[in-house]
Amino acid sequence: MNEDAASTGGEPHPSGSAERQRHYLDWAATAIPEKNSPGLFPAGGIADGNPYGFPFGNPSSDHWEGRVAKEALESARFRCARVLGVEPENLYFTSGGTESNALVIHSLLLRKGQGRLLYSGVEHPSVRENCLALGSLGLPLSVIGVEKDGRVSVDTLSSALQKHTDSRFAAIMGVNNETGAQMDIDSLISTARKNQEKNGLPVHFHCDLVQALGKVPVTIGDMDSASFSAHKLGGVRGAGLLYLKKKIKGLYTGGHQESGVRPGTENTQGALALAEILELRAKPDTVKKENEKARERFKYLLERLRKIGRCSLIPEDREDDDPRFSPWIVQVRFRDVPGPVMVRALDKEGIAVSTGSACSSSSPERPVLQAMGLDEKARLEGIRISQGWSTDIADFDALLAGIEKALSFL
Amino acid sequence: MNEDAASTGGEPHPSGSAERQRHYLDWAATAIPEKNSPGLFPAGGIADGNPYGFPFGNPSSDHWEGRVAKEALESARFRCARVLGVEPENLYFTSGGTESNALVIHSLLLRKGQGRLLYSGVEHPSVRENCLALGSLGLPLSVIGVEKDGRVSVDTLSSALQKHTDSRFAAIMGVNNETGAQMDIDSLISTARKNQEKNGLPVHFHCDLVQALGKVPVTIGDMDSASFSAHKLGGVRGAGLLYLKKKIKGLYTGGHQESGVRPGTENTQGALALAEILELRAKPDTVKKENEKARERFKYLLERLRKIGRCSLIPEDREDDDPRFSPWIVQVRFRDVPGPVMVRALDKEGIAVSTGSACSSSSPERPVLQAMGLDEKARLEGIRISQGWSTDIADFDALLAGIEKALSFL
Repeated sequence: MNEDAASTGGEPHPSGSAERQRHYLDWAATAIPEKNSPGLFPAGGIADGNPYGFPFGNPSSDHWEGRVAKEALESARFRCARVLGVEPENLYFTSGGTESNALVIHSLLLRKGQGRLLYSGVEHPSVRENCLALGSLGLPLSVIGVEKDGRVSVDTLSSALQKHTDSRFAAIMGVNNETGAQMDIDSLISTARKNQEKNGLPVHFHCDLVQALGKVPVTIGDMDSASFSAHKLGGVRGAGLLYLKKKIKGLYTGGHQESGVRPGTENTQGALALAEILELRAKPDTVKKENEKARERFKYLLERLRKIGRCSLIPEDREDDDPRFSPWIVQVRFRDVPGPVMVRALDKEGIAVSTGSACSSSSPERPVLQAMGLDEKARLEGIRISQGWSTDIADFDALLAGIEKALSFL
Repeated sequence: MNEDAASTGGEPHPSGSAERQRHYLDWAATAIPEKNSPGLFPAGGIADGNPYGFPFGNPSSDHWEGRVAKEALESARFRCARVLGVEPENLYFTSGGTESNALVIHSLLLRKGQGRLLYSGVEHPSVRENCLALGSLGLPLSVIGVEKDGRVSVDTLSSALQKHTDSRFAAIMGVNNETGAQMDIDSLISTARKNQEKNGLPVHFHCDLVQALGKVPVTIGDMDSASFSAHKLGGVRGAGLLYLKKKIKGLYTGGHQESGVRPGTENTQGALALAEILELRAKPDTVKKENEKARERFKYLLERLRKIGRCSLIPEDREDDDPRFSPWIVQVRFRDVPGPVMVRALDKEGIAVSTGSACSSSSPERPVLQAMGLDEKARLEGIRISQGWSTDIADFDALLAGIEKALSFL
């Protein structure tokens, strides 16, 4: 273990200390960018004969500089669309996954015959809390319950839609950010469509794919909308995508950029960087290969975690190679050790893990674990381990040693 | 003039053509980034002993990587605050000026005793259209008229506040993006405060400072909120700031980043880049110096524009060195030449100018010029010329020659 880290006490990284080894296992919060990654610092794009060396113009401007920037932006959209297997005109650049979710949800305020919003009990805060915001303005909301494994079943969705015949919107994420639970989106959409035929009311099916993209196979298929983020793939911050089957009229407005869906001067650099990282990480073949590698590595980790007496996986029946879960994220608990205590203990050993979502780090509640039926003690003990493309067995060995050490004095 | 440009007809920049001279005079749409500008590609920040070489962590994460990123983010906030002369806790990072405006305006939906929204007739679309969006949800709106010079007078604001005693919000921009009209914000705020004392209802005074920052002296003073953008200074896209005297509860939510004001994983890179460009461009001394240089250059241009028979400044009584206007932006018209035609003709000569705001380029209406009382013909003839830090007299000479040439055949 990293003795230097342990010896520094409350200040694990005093300024000026030598470079130290770290084992980063919080990829679900954000990914390590590759050094000199084109996705991190886009070199430019269309620069042939460009005296500026960079398509800096405002893509909405009606001059050469503007058209070059517009061309760069559209080439980025085209490249993203090709990776995702959709048409470029259905993709909108946003500032990230949170904004993509918020744009869709807040647009519902302007919809005629607004109807009820359904969202699963394990959605990311950017879905859950934006739905709650609309609830506070009077829109009816209902939560779709999840099974003990954190997944939404076809039966539960079907019951919710039959009970609430005024439903016009359903948000169910692709992969849960705290447990890795992978939803069977195709079946859930079919269920929504069948109920739609019965009730006659169209249900907008929204899917947050932030933790799915690049990690598990993704097919947009019959989704009405879907959200994506660049930084979870190791790309730039502040860049995301929104897929929309049909254009929405957004509440949030301003200029008429992105066909009126997302206002504000277009982030050409961010869009090019997003295209780069999607091409690097999210092509179906690459995802398949990386998913298999992640699965193999996770089998190694989960087998060993299970052997630690005080450790349980969440849910307890998660198997080492379990098709219900993404092999990039696991939630575990250590009996009698509060999650935040374990996170701090591991951090001092040079290992970065987290409890829940970084986006809800300021709140001690664990709504995702609560929705899965865990009692308060169990919820407080949960920690999330998430791997990435450059994670290796040595990182897991360090984690396992760190856990053993922490448990010896906790 | 650039013969090559003129000879290419409809395609002013065929792929593969040699590098060509361009004269960029549309800095109000976006600024030319300095090559290798630290504001464009932030080198990192706190990297001492950082094995990743970059503070990539999620600033909300409770581990070393997260804390380093948080520290970088807060150092960026501190640096921005120092430049703007405010406290760091009153600054919130956003994705840009449009979002900063939208966050403030949409938060009014959640305010108790919502009250009326006032906004000047010359606001940027991201203020005007977001106010209209709230209007469509039932909030009362009124437009504050402007004088013929495009400025809001103290008397007009005072009358509006006396007429609409239910006013709770007033948005008046610092510098207009189409005409350069510079508002006397201090007097306008005093007026709002005086009426506030009379009516007993607090009026939130919001100021869009996107075209003011780095170009004219800016004092936040008694503003309740203010918006800023990085790319108008030559910094990165997708990075902006919101100043808030008091924290607001935003409609748009998700994680609790930026004290709950702006959700989504914090864009550490963008924040660092924003701090860099603010330090480069927006320190009061620098602004004073650059403003004077811009004023001198603009005197040269405006004197010569006046001598062109068919040219009028908008408003006609704008002087060559006029304290009512920012010396970075001028709106002019050429008799019997529609603005878009002049923009295209100049573009072919290698000169980039625009009609109105790039953010309203998809709409042929010119609400700013309409608010100033211009008739339809005059409005359609308006074009905007805007200069930047690297603009020189040669750019203006090229523009003047381009105009003469265009007028000879138009």
